[in-house]
Amino acid sequence: MAEKVVGILGGGQLGRMLSAAASLLNVKVVILDSGDHAPAKQVVAPTAAHLAHVDGSFADAEKIQELAKKVDVLTMEIEHVDVESLRQIESSTNLEIHPSPSTIHIIQDKYRQKEHLSTHKLPLGDFLGVEPTVASVQSAVDKLGLPLMLKSRTLAYDGRGNFAIRDASQIPEAISTLGERPLYAEKWVPFTKEIAVMVVRSASGEVLSYPVVETVHKENVCHLVFAPLRSRDPTLSDRARKIAEDAVKTFSGAGVFGVEMFLTENNDVYINEIAPRPHNSGHYTIEACETSQYENHLRAILSLPLGSTALKVPSTVMLNLIGHSSSMSEIEKTRDVALAIGGTSVHLYGKAECRKGRKMGHITVVAESDTQLRERLRPLLLSFPDTTQEEADKYAALPAVPGAGYSDPNPLVGIIMGSDSDLPVMLAAARILDQFEVPYELTIVSAHRTPDRMVEYARSAATRGLRTDHRCTLDGVDSLHSIVQMPRGIPVATVAINNSTNAGLLAVRILSAGIPRLITAMEQYMRKMENEVLDKVDTLKQVGWVEY
Amino acid sequence: MAEKVVGILGGGQLGRMLSAAASLLNVKVVILDSGDHAPAKQVVAPTAAHLAHVDGSFADAEKIQELAKKVDVLTMEIEHVDVESLRQIESSTNLEIHPSPSTIHIIQDKYRQKEHLSTHKLPLGDFLGVEPTVASVQSAVDKLGLPLMLKSRTLAYDGRGNFAIRDASQIPEAISTLGERPLYAEKWVPFTKEIAVMVVRSASGEVLSYPVVETVHKENVCHLVFAPLRSRDPTLSDRARKIAEDAVKTFSGAGVFGVEMFLTENNDVYINEIAPRPHNSGHYTIEACETSQYENHLRAILSLPLGSTALKVPSTVMLNLIGHSSSMSEIEKTRDVALAIGGTSVHLYGKAECRKGRKMGHITVVAESDTQLRERLRPLLLSFPDTTQEEADKYAALPAVPGAGYSDPNPLVGIIMGSDSDLPVMLAAARILDQFEVPYELTIVSAHRTPDRMVEYARSAATRGLRTDHRCTLDGVDSLHSIVQMPRGIPVATVAINNSTNAGLLAVRILSAGIPRLITAMEQYMRKMENEVLDKVDTLKQVGWVEY
Repeated sequence: MAEKVVGILGGGQLGRMLSAAASLLNVKVVILDSGDHAPAKQVVAPTAAHLAHVDGSFADAEKIQELAKKVDVLTMEIEHVDVESLRQIESSTNLEIHPSPSTIHIIQDKYRQKEHLSTHKLPLGDFLGVEPTVASVQSAVDKLGLPLMLKSRTLAYDGRGNFAIRDASQIPEAISTLGERPLYAEKWVPFTKEIAVMVVRSASGEVLSYPVVETVHKENVCHLVFAPLRSRDPTLSDRARKIAEDAVKTFSGAGVFGVEMFLTENNDVYINEIAPRPHNSGHYTIEACETSQYENHLRAILSLPLGSTALKVPSTVMLNLIGHSSSMSEIEKTRDVALAIGGTSVHLYGKAECRKGRKMGHITVVAESDTQLRERLRPLLLSFPDTTQEEADKYAALPAVPGAGYSDPNPLVGIIMGSDSDLPVMLAAARILDQFEVPYELTIVSAHRTPDRMVEYARSAATRGLRTDHRCTLDGVDSLHSIVQMPRGIPVATVAINNSTNAGLLAVRILSAGIPRLITAMEQYMRKMENEVLDKVDTLKQVGWVEY
Repeated sequence: MAEKVVGILGGGQLGRMLSAAASLLNVKVVILDSGDHAPAKQVVAPTAAHLAHVDGSFADAEKIQELAKKVDVLTMEIEHVDVESLRQIESSTNLEIHPSPSTIHIIQDKYRQKEHLSTHKLPLGDFLGVEPTVASVQSAVDKLGLPLMLKSRTLAYDGRGNFAIRDASQIPEAISTLGERPLYAEKWVPFTKEIAVMVVRSASGEVLSYPVVETVHKENVCHLVFAPLRSRDPTLSDRARKIAEDAVKTFSGAGVFGVEMFLTENNDVYINEIAPRPHNSGHYTIEACETSQYENHLRAILSLPLGSTALKVPSTVMLNLIGHSSSMSEIEKTRDVALAIGGTSVHLYGKAECRKGRKMGHITVVAESDTQLRERLRPLLLSFPDTTQEEADKYAALPAVPGAGYSDPNPLVGIIMGSDSDLPVMLAAARILDQFEVPYELTIVSAHRTPDRMVEYARSAATRGLRTDHRCTLDGVDSLHSIVQMPRGIPVATVAINNSTNAGLLAVRILSAGIPRLITAMEQYMRKMENEVLDKVDTLKQVGWVEY
């Protein structure tokens, strides 16, 4: 690992988090952005005169040249940079530029990006280049149908530069809203979810993908990112990662790429767009993965080995802190709520002023289960001035009240019975799970009377979750009460007949393999049981067995 | 959360990590240390003139005053500061000082610290104040026996200021080595392990402890920190945390405290010493806990709610990077090895020069299991120029080779059988676990013939580990093969007779509740099985059942 100095075009939050990762590795960083106190500059105090930051715009050719003279590797936190300057530097110096100027050139024009991906046979919705004229857009409507997404080819992000035309009469409004910039049109993809995959690419073309996440947008801006994605389709995650990896392989240069995708009702995956840099949908990796997207970006551009992209926690969500007004007070309210909740990490970006719609920070929440995650998320969502009850219920439904007789929406354990006549027997298991605060569902799945339901239940157990279907049964226990005579490969265990207390306790012990809290809780339960017996021994001794 | 500015006495690695935590919360920090490029100053670029760092020693009364004028809360990364200055500031201003000067006063003198803890009836080895004379030390030897630890009362850390007297003839040498400073003597505590607990204390006296860790010292300096502590004694963790919490409750002021303790052969716990600040044994909390010790220190001194101290990963180890010479090349070698290993986080402190014995950085490793952790640790240890094979084997034993017929030293699954005659039946389970790369042990535990072993096996399953006994069986599965007729409270399940393949698969499914990798592996296994059957269907169709 040579002592290369890294120059970053842009000193916002992505540059700040990249710089924080760099300081862990003692990698020296020089920032190009306006002013002395851009977010990234706040966390990098230059240790020598030649490492002083550059004051100027990342779109200013002269300033880019100035930065280039100070560093060994150039990278960027934003793709809307001056590609021509980068190309000149590339051809006239030995400086490494990651990702490559040609990648930036393709990606920063969304139409060119789509054409590129299309050439490489990657799954995309239909699209067409259009002129900013009513006739040209009308022709696109005729070919691609309504609704139609009219989009700016360049300088578009966070939903800016997009217009959804639902009726042909809106065409003039759409054109004037988007301005006289180059445009293109996309056929509407009827997606059920937006998903994303971060991919890190080495200069030599090696790629590693992070887990698939679900992204939730609000007013076209990224609002929540859940990881890992839950789905009834066990093949989805592999398919989406493969598409993202294949897409990133088609570009040149090193670094992380954010691949945003649509998921349709049939679980088909279409690429929406790609960002050639650390991405909002990858912030969660700082706390939740073995290597953060920021460290992996640095590793990639410095030709170091790529780091493990594995999740290290069972469940995580990232929540953007977006300015509600010009006052920080709403952000501070959410921060204060977060500080009182376990598993939260608050990231404030040090921006000088709050503005409506501006990304001021984010919060990552980690949890031992989806249920705990949603319990932790709920007060955060409700701390925003504009969260509706419906939104809170959708993304952070309250778990069922233990003992109330209803299944939890995000169960960790499935108690399944062949018939409702088994209910009295199964209640003891439910009571044990209540006692250990383990969320569960109790339902009827009969191998004889509902064989399809049985198969689907078993198949999708590991990959289901509230966000897809209100149910998620983690392994092992769901098999305990199903049929004993199953073929090799479908493990089945059963407990002593009519003793579902033990089934509940076994479920808790199984879960404790992944939830350390339950190890302690089980120890305490065992000790309590032991003390109860010892008390009885004592009483028996003192009052005699006749009295007893 | 008011916008309080925090002043830190000391700008070394602890100040650096504290500052990094502060920047996440937009908390402004001013550092007092010598020079412009102390490690902490590198990550805090002042955003206004009044936030400029102070150049000087944290022991210099005038400089402390200068810092005090710029900030709202004073804290420190080192306890060897000028207490008198702090007391003057405390009495003449409204500045908050955490921990309080009186706490620093007690703790920075180790003899005074022991007396304080003794007054509060905390468990300590015997100790005595001595004069730096042969007669006085001889008198301590007569009272406390040999070996005897002779220690400096002040300015002692990382083993400096300690002398182990094994024979009375060494007394003059001990005195001259320690210099003419105030001394005290400690009776030798025959410990089997050193353990530590980080405790965070709010100004109002609320305390929260982190998990118990095992610390391994090398040449008197912290070398490795393993979390969580593994032990056959299920009560140990609670007892050690309680002692640490009780000790920290006796002090005043807010912040984190590192409580170092000895563990004896009988699992008794004695306090060794306490540090009133973030501590080397708590570095691992950055990657492995819900809230790092650094963020919790800030929360405590800023009167914010204390953060969750829960581990968020199953297993972790911290490895100090200590200078081997004046060259960084050995450190860089270990860093390069770390970058090629999953789950590692490298922290380099940005110190200007490497020196033998200087703490240059650390590496935290996280893993899904102790076995994976030790696999990851081994090449790191072996990258040091001075690691002996014995040390590598002790702390990072290679796991058993799957399929070789020997139990893994850090098993996740215990396959237990009542008699060796069951071995042929159990082999199928072992083969499945080999296939999924799940470490296991295979042993004989008979409830009828070895009832004590059976009870001990079941009791200590959750808290055992290689570091204590070469064995660790996580929950659930160990019960599967034990006896079916157990009382309520000891959950027992069994699989179809003579089908231990299913037992192996069930074990994998159980583990997948905590190890996401296994969910994917199980999906692939199931799909492969399905394809095999479908191939057979196809063949049957093509060749006819007579031919087939």
